[in-house]
Amino acid sequence: MCNHNNYQMNRPYPSVLLENAVNEFAKLPGVGRKTALRLVLHLLREDISQVDSFTEAVSVLKREVKYCSLCHNISDSEICNLCADTSRDSSVVCVVENIKDVMAIENTVQFKGQYHVLGGIISPIDGIGPSDVEIASLVERVKTKSVKEVILALSATMEGDTTNFYIYRKLEPFNIKVSIIARGVSIGNELEYTDEVTLGRSILNRTPFSESFKINQK
Amino acid sequence: MCNHNNYQMNRPYPSVLLENAVNEFAKLPGVGRKTALRLVLHLLREDISQVDSFTEAVSVLKREVKYCSLCHNISDSEICNLCADTSRDSSVVCVVENIKDVMAIENTVQFKGQYHVLGGIISPIDGIGPSDVEIASLVERVKTKSVKEVILALSATMEGDTTNFYIYRKLEPFNIKVSIIARGVSIGNELEYTDEVTLGRSILNRTPFSESFKINQK
Repeated sequence: MCNHNNYQMNRPYPSVLLENAVNEFAKLPGVGRKTALRLVLHLLREDISQVDSFTEAVSVLKREVKYCSLCHNISDSEICNLCADTSRDSSVVCVVENIKDVMAIENTVQFKGQYHVLGGIISPIDGIGPSDVEIASLVERVKTKSVKEVILALSATMEGDTTNFYIYRKLEPFNIKVSIIARGVSIGNELEYTDEVTLGRSILNRTPFSESFKINQK
Repeated sequence: MCNHNNYQMNRPYPSVLLENAVNEFAKLPGVGRKTALRLVLHLLREDISQVDSFTEAVSVLKREVKYCSLCHNISDSEICNLCADTSRDSSVVCVVENIKDVMAIENTVQFKGQYHVLGGIISPIDGIGPSDVEIASLVERVKTKSVKEVILALSATMEGDTTNFYIYRKLEPFNIKVSIIARGVSIGNELEYTDEVTLGRSILNRTPFSESFKINQK
């Protein structure tokens, strides 16, 4: 339809400073050169105090951020709020890939245990092996703390499955319960549009109807 | 389908620093809280030198950017490259809304005159009047420099039309040529999907066929 998607390529920017800023924004994931230009021009129109608080927030975060020494979640202190919360059950540890997953699970208000953030997922194709994610510290945690159950809450992808299996094998010697979050038909989804693998799993792992409407409200 | 679009609303962020950075990113146009979180977590994974060059580029741009004193385009010097280029025809001035429009027109390689960047468009609904955009300086430029033609190249919106008409009235006393970029069926568009106003204009402003395949190649 129109071919000015790549106009930034053909013509030089009117200013080197502008070009540098656009280049930096365009390095962010999902931000193309056109969006980058739009964001930079927006910041240019803002007050200098607003621009400063933008750059300051990013810079301070990078310099002062801490990771919880227990669960590796992002934190402002040595131990994060979730791990420090004594009302939470420290014997149940939910293994997730990243911080966003902690926030997603916390948002369900269905889980009152603790977390373990792997900081990644085993993916041989991307060169990410077991030692690149926080699996050793999980094993150590199970060995030294009184953990009774580990819940695997990784994405339902091949990499997630690989990581689940690797962790499962590593935790076998400790004789604790290792469970995995249920996979099945998403709430609101129609059966005919659900893929066969998911549907098959949801039949195999069917739950008693009397339990299906229970939600954890304690 | 899923309702964790707003999970950031319900649950506190694990870190105040993280939350601040997300808030700053979420102020950018078209960036929601979820995207903001993704961008911030990306920067967190980057080297500190990369994060510094990001914040530095934004900060330096805001502090050191200049605007061309003639055309108001963004520039690294007092007069921008386009105005300083003596091979360009300074008697033809193309009026555009913003810097992106200059870049878009430059990319067509069809225009060898100079520009005048209004820095906005008259929009009473947004409280933007004639004095908020660079119209006075355009009139001054026409009055003092030997401008022979002003080309109006604003968006084909109501605000664009209002601004076009305002400028046209302001330039009437100077007895110069005031033209407007052609409006018609976009190249590649099918006739049946073109709106009536555009199609009607394209019939009224039809051009001799022999001129329709000419492009400016000098």
